[in-house]
Amino acid sequence: MTNEPLPVLAILGGTGDLGTGLARRWAQAGYRVIIGSRTLEKAQAAVADLHEVMAERGVAQVHVEAMENLDAATAADIVTLTVPFSHQAATLELVKPALAGKILVDVTVPLVPPKVARVQLPEAGSAGQIAQELLGEEVAVVSAFQNVPAAKLQEADGPDCDVLVCGNKREAREAVITLVEAAGMRGFHAGMINNAAAAEALTSVLIVINKQYQCHAGIRITGLGDH
Amino acid sequence: MTNEPLPVLAILGGTGDLGTGLARRWAQAGYRVIIGSRTLEKAQAAVADLHEVMAERGVAQVHVEAMENLDAATAADIVTLTVPFSHQAATLELVKPALAGKILVDVTVPLVPPKVARVQLPEAGSAGQIAQELLGEEVAVVSAFQNVPAAKLQEADGPDCDVLVCGNKREAREAVITLVEAAGMRGFHAGMINNAAAAEALTSVLIVINKQYQCHAGIRITGLGDH
Repeated sequence: MTNEPLPVLAILGGTGDLGTGLARRWAQAGYRVIIGSRTLEKAQAAVADLHEVMAERGVAQVHVEAMENLDAATAADIVTLTVPFSHQAATLELVKPALAGKILVDVTVPLVPPKVARVQLPEAGSAGQIAQELLGEEVAVVSAFQNVPAAKLQEADGPDCDVLVCGNKREAREAVITLVEAAGMRGFHAGMINNAAAAEALTSVLIVINKQYQCHAGIRITGLGDH
Repeated sequence: MTNEPLPVLAILGGTGDLGTGLARRWAQAGYRVIIGSRTLEKAQAAVADLHEVMAERGVAQVHVEAMENLDAATAADIVTLTVPFSHQAATLELVKPALAGKILVDVTVPLVPPKVARVQLPEAGSAGQIAQELLGEEVAVVSAFQNVPAAKLQEADGPDCDVLVCGNKREAREAVITLVEAAGMRGFHAGMINNAAAAEALTSVLIVINKQYQCHAGIRITGLGDH
């Protein structure tokens, strides 16, 4: 443990299931969390909902704010993007000026509706690579959380799964692995940003499994030996 | 249980770690297994080695034969391909005439040496799709076993991991899931052949994890509920 202050976290598109799930867990872990949305009203509604859930869980105090996406990105140290693939590029273009020198956690899964159970990766290889190319070297893009069942993330006890963490900069990956742990899961360094393709493709596989078993599946890494 | 006879299994490129690992487990489960290789001598050496291992394990009788790849494919009902990506197309072209109406289990991982820890999927999307396109509709290609640690597969107690099984034909997927179970693992229907990309990409991620932890990692599906 060091005495460094915790980074301020923004979650863009933070009103969906995955965004609110992460917000709950990080807020409960003591982080200051900014929920970003396209409109301030939607973000405020998500914050009000979060406060209700925290009260139900008996959590005394959390630091959560609502902002529009660009303001949220500006105010934060680490910015997490949880928008649908179809909004990824536009949202990143909007907030790009606010991201220089920061970490962008890309949670985008390049699903192609209506066939979301079929792997259809983009030409660039992965949504993670699209984000890194769009934002340039000034921003450390880290891909994570694609295989976390959002419904489970919102519950108090959290999901039974691991998180694959990909990115080109070691320090940025390590910062995100810390956030994975703060959210109650194990994070694994899973390679450079190209390897985001694995986690993104796996989401369609988990959709197939969820449909068969009527469940919220995830993955765990096995065979680590004594680790 | 039905009274249908067990299918005869061929493993092409069956002299490598993964091929011999599968051969050991299927032979021990009572299947007739044909180890195929480019030369009869290499296949015979692998069969002799398998008999030694079975004797060490106290297994009284196994049905294992050595053949050249085309003869092996001709004699088998289900053909498993465990050659390096660089030999995939040539081997399939060679045995294609013997595969009509059969199941081809593609274990190929499209790694691009020397950067095997980096996901670099082929233009077709996956090695599984390449196999299905090359063999045509006459052959049911099923992708499986990419994420099984070969070293663990060779041991008596077997690996602690699940197997993702992709393919366009349900009956063929089910036949392969039966083979996964015969080898001591759980198999999951993971979608159409396009979804082979997920398992193939995941192999590079597991290589990254193996390097960090000095281990033989695999994956397990979690969150299945009561299943």
